[in-house]
Amino acid sequence: MSAITLYGDSESGNCLKTRWAAEHTGQDFDWVEIDSVGGETRTEAFLAINPAGQVPVMRLADGRVLAQSNAILLYLAEGSDLIPSDGFERAQMMQWLFFEQYSHEPYIAVRRAQRRFFNIAEDDLDPDLLAKGRRALGVMEMKLLTCPFLLGDQMSCADIALVAYTRVAHEGGFDLGEFPAVSGWVRRVETALGLEHAG
Amino acid sequence: MSAITLYGDSESGNCLKTRWAAEHTGQDFDWVEIDSVGGETRTEAFLAINPAGQVPVMRLADGRVLAQSNAILLYLAEGSDLIPSDGFERAQMMQWLFFEQYSHEPYIAVRRAQRRFFNIAEDDLDPDLLAKGRRALGVMEMKLLTCPFLLGDQMSCADIALVAYTRVAHEGGFDLGEFPAVSGWVRRVETALGLEHAG
Repeated sequence: MSAITLYGDSESGNCLKTRWAAEHTGQDFDWVEIDSVGGETRTEAFLAINPAGQVPVMRLADGRVLAQSNAILLYLAEGSDLIPSDGFERAQMMQWLFFEQYSHEPYIAVRRAQRRFFNIAEDDLDPDLLAKGRRALGVMEMKLLTCPFLLGDQMSCADIALVAYTRVAHEGGFDLGEFPAVSGWVRRVETALGLEHAG
Repeated sequence: MSAITLYGDSESGNCLKTRWAAEHTGQDFDWVEIDSVGGETRTEAFLAINPAGQVPVMRLADGRVLAQSNAILLYLAEGSDLIPSDGFERAQMMQWLFFEQYSHEPYIAVRRAQRRFFNIAEDDLDPDLLAKGRRALGVMEMKLLTCPFLLGDQMSCADIALVAYTRVAHEGGFDLGEFPAVSGWVRRVETALGLEHAG
């Protein structure tokens, strides 16, 4: 058994963030695939690990458990080049991580899930999801017009967190063609992480 | 002028978090009151500081600006006893901070704002807000039955972030009487921060 076990659903951007961080930083880990849409986060065995019934979850060899994708991402990235050494840059990274969970994921990931996994008809989707998701992409576009990664020249946890659902935003009905700087950045981060292009 | 200027609305828990952190850690700062409900985040002067039109915002003397309440909170708390030295405890603190922005604030703060600032009638409120807000309080209750603060014996940024809207949850129609461990913790954190009880 590895020192770290990650429980995640490979269709979930929140879960993939944690796997990419573990791979990028060269850590020894086991991946346990959990089909969350299929109900595997609600089994007795899984609820014993995370009573909240959510993936991703990280379990250490001594049994300690951590939830919340960005908290796991930060834990795995500790001491690597994914976390800037400058205090203010670290604060800017945190700003993007909270932006991701508050102003990006609830629209872009949720609209994708409703279309792709729950087959909700286009007309039945909350129009707010498209408007607010586009606003989040616009905020990223403004920043990425000025630099290759969200914090500047160096990829950080902010890029990993935000690329997770941005690279599959088209599955949520978002047109990344409207956001050329974001599109270029998606390919840049995918290349840095060794991923195939999702578009 | 102080080294740090905080722009915030004293009615907003997200803004108060940053003020409490600055006060608790004994930092020299100026507070600029911004009436967000009254439209002061949309003035030209404010948008020049934060184009996103949101409070809180922190500005350093050299002009650098940081947004997102929990990112500012962490920046101000850096090097203080509000951030645990142990890596896994820091990760647990981050878990609570993301929980706050994803699973607590969008229900508890939003329901309070709709009732208190926008005078939306009880029957017109989204029933999801009450159900999901109560679920978040339940998660906190389970933890706080076992220890005085969210990470154990020592107050951290997690307590500051989560107390901000929990202490005024009654204004959102939540009954903290159902969550006795949470109620006791609110008073404990208020005392530690030198606040009057909000209930």
